[in-house]
Amino acid sequence: MSDPVYKLFEAVGTSEKSIEDAVQNALARAAKTVRNMYWFEVTETRGNIENGKVKRWQVTLKIGFSLEE
Amino acid sequence: MSDPVYKLFEAVGTSEKSIEDAVQNALARAAKTVRNMYWFEVTETRGNIENGKVKRWQVTLKIGFSLEE
Amino acid sequence: MSDPVYKLFEAVGTSEKSIEDAVQNALARAAKTVRNMYWFEVTETRGNIENGKVKRWQVTLKIGFSLEE
Amino acid sequence: MSDPVYKLFEAVGTSEKSIEDAVQNALARAAKTVRNMYWFEVTETRGNIENGKVKRWQVTLKIGFSLEE
Amino acid sequence: MSDPVYKLFEAVGTSEKSIEDAVQNALARAAKTVRNMYWFEVTETRGNIENGKVKRWQVTLKIGFSLEE
Amino acid sequence: MSDPVYKLFEAVGTSEKSIEDAVQNALARAAKTVRNMYWFEVTETRGNIENGKVKRWQVTLKIGFSLEE
Amino acid sequence: MSDPVYKLFEAVGTSEKSIEDAVQNALARAAKTVRNMYWFEVTETRGNIENGKVKRWQVTLKIGFSLEE
Amino acid sequence: MSDPVYKLFEAVGTSEKSIEDAVQNALARAAKTVRNMYWFEVTETRGNIENGKVKRWQVTLKIGFSLEE
Amino acid sequence: MSDPVYKLFEAVGTSEKSIEDAVQNALARAAKTVRNMYWFEVTETRGNIENGKVKRWQVTLKIGFSLEE
Amino acid sequence: MSDPVYKLFEAVGTSEKSIEDAVQNALARAAKTVRNMYWFEVTETRGNIENGKVKRWQVTLKIGFSLEE
Amino acid sequence: MSDPVYKLFEAVGTSEKSIEDAVQNALARAAKTVRNMYWFEVTETRGNIENGKVKRWQVTLKIGFSLEE
Amino acid sequence: MSDPVYKLFEAVGTSEKSIEDAVQNALARAAKTVRNMYWFEVTETRGNIENGKVKRWQVTLKIGFSLEE
Repeated sequence: MSDPVYKLFEAVGTSEKSIEDAVQNALARAAKTVRNMYWFEVTETRGNIENGKVKRWQVTLKIGFSLEE
Repeated sequence: MSDPVYKLFEAVGTSEKSIEDAVQNALARAAKTVRNMYWFEVTETRGNIENGKVKRWQVTLKIGFSLEE
Repeated sequence: MSDPVYKLFEAVGTSEKSIEDAVQNALARAAKTVRNMYWFEVTETRGNIENGKVKRWQVTLKIGFSLEE
Repeated sequence: MSDPVYKLFEAVGTSEKSIEDAVQNALARAAKTVRNMYWFEVTETRGNIENGKVKRWQVTLKIGFSLEE
Repeated sequence: MSDPVYKLFEAVGTSEKSIEDAVQNALARAAKTVRNMYWFEVTETRGNIENGKVKRWQVTLKIGFSLEE
Repeated sequence: MSDPVYKLFEAVGTSEKSIEDAVQNALARAAKTVRNMYWFEVTETRGNIENGKVKRWQVTLKIGFSLEE
Repeated sequence: MSDPVYKLFEAVGTSEKSIEDAVQNALARAAKTVRNMYWFEVTETRGNIENGKVKRWQVTLKIGFSLEE
Repeated sequence: MSDPVYKLFEAVGTSEKSIEDAVQNALARAAKTVRNMYWFEVTETRGNIENGKVKRWQVTLKIGFSLEE
Repeated sequence: MSDPVYKLFEAVGTSEKSIEDAVQNALARAAKTVRNMYWFEVTETRGNIENGKVKRWQVTLKIGFSLEE
Repeated sequence: MSDPVYKLFEAVGTSEKSIEDAVQNALARAAKTVRNMYWFEVTETRGNIENGKVKRWQVTLKIGFSLEE
Repeated sequence: MSDPVYKLFEAVGTSEKSIEDAVQNALARAAKTVRNMYWFEVTETRGNIENGKVKRWQVTLKIGFSLEE
Repeated sequence: MSDPVYKLFEAVGTSEKSIEDAVQNALARAAKTVRNMYWFEVTETRGNIENGKVKRWQVTLKIGFSLEE
């Protein structure tokens, strides 16, 4: 059996609710086209502001998935 | 119409509840004196500890607002 | 009275619920053997993925505690 | 309406003229296959040298585009 | 005569033309309210994209000015 | 002739033998679907441990390839 | 009682004597207009040179102060 | 079953042979007193020089191990 | 003779006098329980403020010591 | 034929016109004493300010050149 | 006896064989003109690719040597 | 008159007394062979330890000097 190889890509999930929800949204969208996603790392947490409140959380992720042989 | 210019400042919001709440507290306080805040970026997430639990979340933000002409 | 000295260590807390819960889990476990923990800093937020969803949040902390004389 | 999700990729544009032109070249080439590009960030500015002069500017960009639902 | 003290602030200048022009715009706007600006450092170069072209350069600066006694 | 444009992607190669072998494995796997790869940069070197020994080296690379016109 | 919020700003203190003195000079000057300063962090230590000696230490600080309600 | 918690520590392994061997030496020594080590990350690769040759590789690792309940 | 292995830990020394004194305080306290400390690196220099003056320097160190066989 | 070895050095080019011109000035000056320069990387972009305008761009470069055998 | 002073320079060693060999090549070449080299630190590991394989490892080093009085 | 160009180099000064003294020692030694040094930046502060005390401060500097035409 050969040695596993993984690929990484970056995505930005957004949510009006929470940081965790923004991450879940990014993964849910990515899962439509990418299989075998195994781990992620948060690389940036941002948001835009409306009326002095967070309007939308924007969380950047690095996501790793395995390449099938 | 001239090119927009923005200014950035750093603030630390705190909360006993959550990271998101600490961010909202920083924005709410800043909104009392700063208008036209558009975006923020989380640059540090810290907290102090009491009895082996998070006592208070301390979240540092960079906040951007537009300068009026 | 002499000058206080602190020590820092790194731990990774995990949780299926939230980033905040992962931090609390790390502190709760550390509190079993370390006294006088005063502050922490989040240095990494990661997670593993199952079925296109966050399975478990993994949050790395630097935790500071005071050394008794 | 669901929460927008974005994807990021890195590209290197080159130009014999200027940093700005190298960025435009990277975007023009990427636009042939990627729709809905919204923003970029310069992450590296390099170049190669010939006869003690910049021969070609090489500018690395992170480019964000929205994923359609 | 006492030792000089400086203060730093961050601003984002924008321009449809070039990176240099975005910097000049930030300085021109800041000069309306800040005196004695002496130096700056570019800390980020970004932009937004329209039709596969740079629509507007966004350059973040740290700007130093001296505090009068 | 137009100005060359390159694209970058990140991959993780693994090997039970060495860091170099992990890099070669990542490139060999990527070469099945990507043409014109020209250079790489190691961005992370990690591994997992079994019985107090490195079980498998995990090396993260940024790989650059040219986009054909 | 509401959650405390803090603001951060950057200043450069200078001194012909020492790094510590440059920090004290920055704080002394800032204290003329800012109340409730609580902590600082050194982010850069530089200096200019005259006749092969440090002429003046230049120390950049991030200073935190609490915003009153 | 409760959520796993891990601890991290840093060690420097050395070897006259190779980077990989320096890592193995650090793990072998650490395994004498630490159980359940799961992963490591190389954070620095240095060495000392004798007669214009590498005398000894010095590789700094962050090593993670699980805390038993 | 086997290859030397070192361990690193982080500590924060404090002092009302100077940065150097804060470092010495951290080392003096650590020396009560750690033998064979060989080198340190300053990773952060902070302090708290009282009446517009440095009240106490807080210097974070990484300290390396050799593990006996 | 032996393996090529390169050396790197840092220089600061300045110009009243543009970032690109500051880079060219640094290279032109370096070319008077260094042969075989092949590539550069911009590591800092700064400038000084006069009357609310950029007086002079200051661009720091890392420049690589090959060592002849 | 006076206090030792060291100087640092950066070099890139290359090799078709391994990372270690690239480092040795850089040191061997540097030793032709620099005496008293004591230590190095790897700051970058890159390579170029040919036919989906590493053609040549390129390892950047910071090398320290002592200045004689 | 042409645009000034500067060169940077790194040196490590050492001292048994203080950080400031280590910097002065590096500059004094460098001044024997380099003219027109204008500024420096501290990039690392380290030291070695003997009997639980700082034996010798080791301070790394980047030093800038102007190249004469």
